[in-house]
Amino acid sequence: MKTGLKIATIGGGSSYTPELIEGFIKRYDELPVSEIWLVDIEEGKEKLEIVGNLAKRMVKKSGLPIDVHLTLDRKAALEGADFVTTQFRVGRMEARIKDEKIPLKYGVIGQETNGPGGLFKALRTIPVILDICREMEKYCPDAWLINFTNPAGMVTEAVLRYSNIEKVVGLCNVPIGMEMAVARMLNVDHSRIRIDFAGLNHMVFGLDVYLDGESIMDKVIGMVTDPKNTEVVKNVPGAGWEPSFIKALRLLPCPYHQYYLKTREMTEKVLEEAKTYGTRGEVVQKLEEELFELYKDPNLDVKPPQLEKRGGAYYSEAAVRLISSLYNDKKDIQPVNTRNNGAIAGIPAESAVEISCIITKNGPKPIAVGDLPFPVRGLVQQIKSFERAAIEAAVTGNYDMAVLALTINPLVASDTLAKKIVDEMLEAHKKYLPQFFNKRQSVQ
Amino acid sequence: MKTGLKIATIGGGSSYTPELIEGFIKRYDELPVSEIWLVDIEEGKEKLEIVGNLAKRMVKKSGLPIDVHLTLDRKAALEGADFVTTQFRVGRMEARIKDEKIPLKYGVIGQETNGPGGLFKALRTIPVILDICREMEKYCPDAWLINFTNPAGMVTEAVLRYSNIEKVVGLCNVPIGMEMAVARMLNVDHSRIRIDFAGLNHMVFGLDVYLDGESIMDKVIGMVTDPKNTEVVKNVPGAGWEPSFIKALRLLPCPYHQYYLKTREMTEKVLEEAKTYGTRGEVVQKLEEELFELYKDPNLDVKPPQLEKRGGAYYSEAAVRLISSLYNDKKDIQPVNTRNNGAIAGIPAESAVEISCIITKNGPKPIAVGDLPFPVRGLVQQIKSFERAAIEAAVTGNYDMAVLALTINPLVASDTLAKKIVDEMLEAHKKYLPQFFNKRQSVQ
Amino acid sequence: MKTGLKIATIGGGSSYTPELIEGFIKRYDELPVSEIWLVDIEEGKEKLEIVGNLAKRMVKKSGLPIDVHLTLDRKAALEGADFVTTQFRVGRMEARIKDEKIPLKYGVIGQETNGPGGLFKALRTIPVILDICREMEKYCPDAWLINFTNPAGMVTEAVLRYSNIEKVVGLCNVPIGMEMAVARMLNVDHSRIRIDFAGLNHMVFGLDVYLDGESIMDKVIGMVTDPKNTEVVKNVPGAGWEPSFIKALRLLPCPYHQYYLKTREMTEKVLEEAKTYGTRGEVVQKLEEELFELYKDPNLDVKPPQLEKRGGAYYSEAAVRLISSLYNDKKDIQPVNTRNNGAIAGIPAESAVEISCIITKNGPKPIAVGDLPFPVRGLVQQIKSFERAAIEAAVTGNYDMAVLALTINPLVASDTLAKKIVDEMLEAHKKYLPQFFNKRQSVQ
Amino acid sequence: MKTGLKIATIGGGSSYTPELIEGFIKRYDELPVSEIWLVDIEEGKEKLEIVGNLAKRMVKKSGLPIDVHLTLDRKAALEGADFVTTQFRVGRMEARIKDEKIPLKYGVIGQETNGPGGLFKALRTIPVILDICREMEKYCPDAWLINFTNPAGMVTEAVLRYSNIEKVVGLCNVPIGMEMAVARMLNVDHSRIRIDFAGLNHMVFGLDVYLDGESIMDKVIGMVTDPKNTEVVKNVPGAGWEPSFIKALRLLPCPYHQYYLKTREMTEKVLEEAKTYGTRGEVVQKLEEELFELYKDPNLDVKPPQLEKRGGAYYSEAAVRLISSLYNDKKDIQPVNTRNNGAIAGIPAESAVEISCIITKNGPKPIAVGDLPFPVRGLVQQIKSFERAAIEAAVTGNYDMAVLALTINPLVASDTLAKKIVDEMLEAHKKYLPQFFNKRQSVQ
Repeated sequence: MKTGLKIATIGGGSSYTPELIEGFIKRYDELPVSEIWLVDIEEGKEKLEIVGNLAKRMVKKSGLPIDVHLTLDRKAALEGADFVTTQFRVGRMEARIKDEKIPLKYGVIGQETNGPGGLFKALRTIPVILDICREMEKYCPDAWLINFTNPAGMVTEAVLRYSNIEKVVGLCNVPIGMEMAVARMLNVDHSRIRIDFAGLNHMVFGLDVYLDGESIMDKVIGMVTDPKNTEVVKNVPGAGWEPSFIKALRLLPCPYHQYYLKTREMTEKVLEEAKTYGTRGEVVQKLEEELFELYKDPNLDVKPPQLEKRGGAYYSEAAVRLISSLYNDKKDIQPVNTRNNGAIAGIPAESAVEISCIITKNGPKPIAVGDLPFPVRGLVQQIKSFERAAIEAAVTGNYDMAVLALTINPLVASDTLAKKIVDEMLEAHKKYLPQFFNKRQSVQ
Repeated sequence: MKTGLKIATIGGGSSYTPELIEGFIKRYDELPVSEIWLVDIEEGKEKLEIVGNLAKRMVKKSGLPIDVHLTLDRKAALEGADFVTTQFRVGRMEARIKDEKIPLKYGVIGQETNGPGGLFKALRTIPVILDICREMEKYCPDAWLINFTNPAGMVTEAVLRYSNIEKVVGLCNVPIGMEMAVARMLNVDHSRIRIDFAGLNHMVFGLDVYLDGESIMDKVIGMVTDPKNTEVVKNVPGAGWEPSFIKALRLLPCPYHQYYLKTREMTEKVLEEAKTYGTRGEVVQKLEEELFELYKDPNLDVKPPQLEKRGGAYYSEAAVRLISSLYNDKKDIQPVNTRNNGAIAGIPAESAVEISCIITKNGPKPIAVGDLPFPVRGLVQQIKSFERAAIEAAVTGNYDMAVLALTINPLVASDTLAKKIVDEMLEAHKKYLPQFFNKRQSVQ
Repeated sequence: MKTGLKIATIGGGSSYTPELIEGFIKRYDELPVSEIWLVDIEEGKEKLEIVGNLAKRMVKKSGLPIDVHLTLDRKAALEGADFVTTQFRVGRMEARIKDEKIPLKYGVIGQETNGPGGLFKALRTIPVILDICREMEKYCPDAWLINFTNPAGMVTEAVLRYSNIEKVVGLCNVPIGMEMAVARMLNVDHSRIRIDFAGLNHMVFGLDVYLDGESIMDKVIGMVTDPKNTEVVKNVPGAGWEPSFIKALRLLPCPYHQYYLKTREMTEKVLEEAKTYGTRGEVVQKLEEELFELYKDPNLDVKPPQLEKRGGAYYSEAAVRLISSLYNDKKDIQPVNTRNNGAIAGIPAESAVEISCIITKNGPKPIAVGDLPFPVRGLVQQIKSFERAAIEAAVTGNYDMAVLALTINPLVASDTLAKKIVDEMLEAHKKYLPQFFNKRQSVQ
Repeated sequence: MKTGLKIATIGGGSSYTPELIEGFIKRYDELPVSEIWLVDIEEGKEKLEIVGNLAKRMVKKSGLPIDVHLTLDRKAALEGADFVTTQFRVGRMEARIKDEKIPLKYGVIGQETNGPGGLFKALRTIPVILDICREMEKYCPDAWLINFTNPAGMVTEAVLRYSNIEKVVGLCNVPIGMEMAVARMLNVDHSRIRIDFAGLNHMVFGLDVYLDGESIMDKVIGMVTDPKNTEVVKNVPGAGWEPSFIKALRLLPCPYHQYYLKTREMTEKVLEEAKTYGTRGEVVQKLEEELFELYKDPNLDVKPPQLEKRGGAYYSEAAVRLISSLYNDKKDIQPVNTRNNGAIAGIPAESAVEISCIITKNGPKPIAVGDLPFPVRGLVQQIKSFERAAIEAAVTGNYDMAVLALTINPLVASDTLAKKIVDEMLEAHKKYLPQFFNKRQSVQ
């Protein structure tokens, strides 16, 4: 008889794994996990063993009856799982670095979830996630798929539209980070702050902010637009923008909005940083190497503090909080990527949105937003247009649709540029894009 | 007793007037115009007299019983009018040239209906059109307002949302030009070609193309994307784009889409042309001077062929065709700017759209389109977001909203850049923007 | 080489056929029909021959080069057809009489397109029409299906949802009859009157009325609600209703609305008439017998005037007018049953609605209506709910769904009553409802 | 400084008041009420004093520091209130009895919230609630209005559309009763059962049922449709219906659906009961008299058990639970009447719906439902059409609109019947319907 929950983590060799393990340990009293299966592919075997052994030491230290399994056999990991989490990266860090560097050659922002990088990460990832879904149907049809793999919104929509798995949630740490930043600014505990979120993944807006349930939107807008507050509001959503813009908007943008509404500055910044420090992928690659060196230490049995620099803050918090609410039918409010179901007007019911939801055992139920405020309706729709084109290209391998996706992406906004970038990136990622090369639907 | 129709043309001193006069003469048998009142402001008096006298000579030559009146008294012109047409330009050509030149200093496309130029033309024009509407309520409450003044879509929506005039149609020659180009490509008469249009003004797409009622979309897409056709398809919608993009799109873009989907190329082109020939406004200014020299010739009694270079091809055709269909309840299909009324899903019922309509005596009735194809849904929504912000700024004089409008416009896409351009252009157009200076709603 | 149009008329043995033949003869100059195939089933052979021979004599008299074919071979009739018209009745007049009589036993209106009769006519007819569609795919994939068979709205929606035939139009003579009645009341020619129609088949409202293009809605509402006009407004939509109701409604109801908004009076009336004269089906049956007697007369070569009493006034006018507009790409406005496509807000895009459309060679294009006026939104939605349940029951043979359909129908409005009526009618129509008897999905 | 919450209860003389007082006492630890103001009108003075003194004794017994005030001065009661609850009845029980009896004369169901009774209760109540709202704006602009006064849905929508009070929630004990019944059937605690509700007040459906968060809809449907369960499922939603109907519906109807989907049976039942025992109002009137006799007992200091027969079970539970969640920002899920805001597709954003919401300090946030299942979309829309017509008639005093409202109500479904009933009921309730008599908008 089953005594606890089985977790299967695809991409278990990720440097993030200790975050996740720590989360399961901390919440063991409400989430009785008995097995964690870390699964990875052949190429990731070494990392899987390093980080997997750390995971085992962490669990051992905790004294909890959790078994950690390391495996390259995905089916064994999925068999009977209760929750499947994904944190894999198709093509590993090398692919990310290409996603970042190639667009820069054309003066276009190189970033892993926006613009050309977002498109190609989708093209590489979606076929793999759909494979995983097909296996889940067979080996763990009742499991929840908790997807952290970017681009999380497009991956979630691809699962909703093109697989039979309905129990899927996409998760991102951006919204929780926005709440944390506001809490920090106000010097209050995170638990007292709540933001109504609506939009898409990496394109989410805060519609209202509450402190102990009372709306403090006016106060927050006032603080982040007051030039005297520069220090206090650092990294707070809305800070660093033209006060006029934020006052007229009366919404909190997320950090990724800078790519679309500070395009010129961000392009320069990304170019400059790439020249000075290397791209973010290169920086992370180095950080990861250092992390894995640390992980190797057989005496290490806690998540090392250096992991925080890696990014992904609150990842554990967001992930395990979600899993616990699903398992325990907590009915608390969390922002996740899920089926729109009419919550945001004008977006198809079956599209994925990132939105504040009640998390029940039966899944996330989005809170109705109705019409988005008109100033952001357009940008959100435009990114959704891009996402749908990207998903269609990923599923069909249709070259023309890939060119269209990039043409309508605001960071490219040019058909000729789109074609050049698509051509170079298709070639660069050829190995991970069989759908385009086995059956090319259009002559270039 | 009234014997014929009274037309009041606001901005009657425009160089376009001979087009319009020619149109009324040609269609006199179906449109019994008895009075044409050309009205202009004090500063336009000289031009009004020059072009007005040409109009009188043209009418005289026609032998038709039409009286042409020249006046600076708008109320006299409006009194009892059946149709009010607008072709005025607030701030005249000088303002247009500023709209073009200032953005270019910031590396942003300078154009009179897109980006910063479109915003400021809206800010200058909307208060004037709303004044005209208030006078129409009083002097000719049953008249149709046929608006040609750009930005025609925003002006139409401002009238629909902020005036009591419901009988308003916005008109643009872009859609008719697209049909003409397809007809030319196929070497058939224009009357045999019909395009289903939907979108916004200067943001309209051809959804399907018919020859004698049969869809020939596949053929047209094939022709415009075939590299062998370069010569034949010149200026045909869809030609000059990446074939992959057009094939995946399966729609006909309008020429203005190049600003948004060939942004980089167009920016370079506009900058280059401005350097070489001056901006379009400067070119047109010179053309207009030459035209008015011609118009002065007391022997000239026809529309001089040089007018065609001025732009506005088919302007007469589109305008008088529309007026005749309204007057005669023709129930033919024409693309105009009108209240959406649910025709395009996701756009408010009371917003203006540019769409194929049945033209009845009771006004244009849009043909239901439902959801726009997903690849263009985003861009259309984004421009509508910009338009609504621009209209709101124009009506309220809210500085912050003007900054927001320009920030979300894809040609600017930057809050800091938006602020700089707004600040410089507000100052440059100060004289025509009293709503911003009498009651500044935000400190810069 | 094909020289003219081929028409295939399913249910060619109908007493209506002379109407249709007369229409084709009258419009021959604009609609070059060369072959009319009248096809019927074995049981209808005798009637087919009688009416078919009259059709031949009518054509002969006209001197036109049209061949009339009589056949029991549906495939031969469909082969290469340009237009397929349907006027068949599954189960013939006997089934109609049952549809009328059985509900009356339960005190429920017995009528062939509303309530239980409408449900069972849909259950019998939809499988047959879907069979015809499958044959059309094979034998005349480019033909238009012009459906007159009731319930025309449900039949059209069934084709749109459950067949591959997209070129389908449902036609009813109710809207044209409403226009004719208004024209008669105003003593003007029908061509000068136009009504904006929107709703569902036999549930259509006139939203506005135009005389020569000018709205005369206020005048019409005034006339039909003025008690002094009783004689003049006889049979005019809106007359015979409580003036208060019509004034608050400001819409023109169709005659069938009486079943839903004068339910008690109509129930009594139908019961009384059934007792006195027999049901409408019985009356028509007798009329038809007399008609066929007339049709047999070898000297008769015109449509006999007695046909008008049969009902179906303007049937020929509506049918041939529609076919001609489709063939000639006339782009005139006609009310037909077609895919909603967003025209009426809140009704699925793929549902059939009865609405004013532009008739093009590419099919009817509905004019956008947006939200229906709130007082009728509910009733229209409720009938659409019933229609969808009925269609689903017809296609699946799901007994429970048939009970649900009748329960939610306002004329029944009772689950226990619904079950009783369904049970008795299923048994009575057993022969024509194989889908319910070969695979009963629920135990009664 | 304010030390606790002030509650103002309009209609404080109601026999329900002990329920409410008990609720506040029980939840005092989470809801620190310091003042309860029971306010009533002159005619209700005696009852106010009787029940008010009982309330005082109950509070005294509890030992809690709550002051109970009895007053006829509404402004004093509202001044500074935190929550305003309404439980008044315009015209008292006599009006209810007329609402029940007059329709029965016409063979139409006489009931206080459906059909003619619902219309006239709305006509009498809405002007009073709007008066209260105007006073709240002045005396307690930050208070929440918790409306229990029937028809709760229409009253809530009237406040949303026609007042400046945005903090309004309509409450009904029907949904909580449905959950309780399911819990009883399954023999589990209510806290373990949750139903997803959506619809309108007294027209709400259970879309899904959960036990400890797991959907048990199939099981519940199975139980309530199993003829063997007759005893167990008594009063459980879905029981007592034709099993076929419920199986096809796959939703849980509420008790009031019987009026619309068992119309004939219910009409007979209501007529029979009225003859045998008097109408429900008459029964309740007698019960109330007995209750007030009990309340007079100076030794009584608890809610007497006889109150339960009065109806309104769980009223205290629902009311105080809601107030506590609003006050404490509990974010639990409760079904209430609130602004739709896009949650149910096809219903205006500003209309009231009854729907599962998260209850936050900032108000209820509806969970997005999207499209209602098609079989119930129509009935819900039809009742919403009726509600909107009724609200418009209540606010404007438009006689024609009152006739229309009743004509489109499915329980009447006849214009002539509607007029007769409206005329008789207008006269009967004349005293409470000044809006119809001071300015009659239409001649009868």
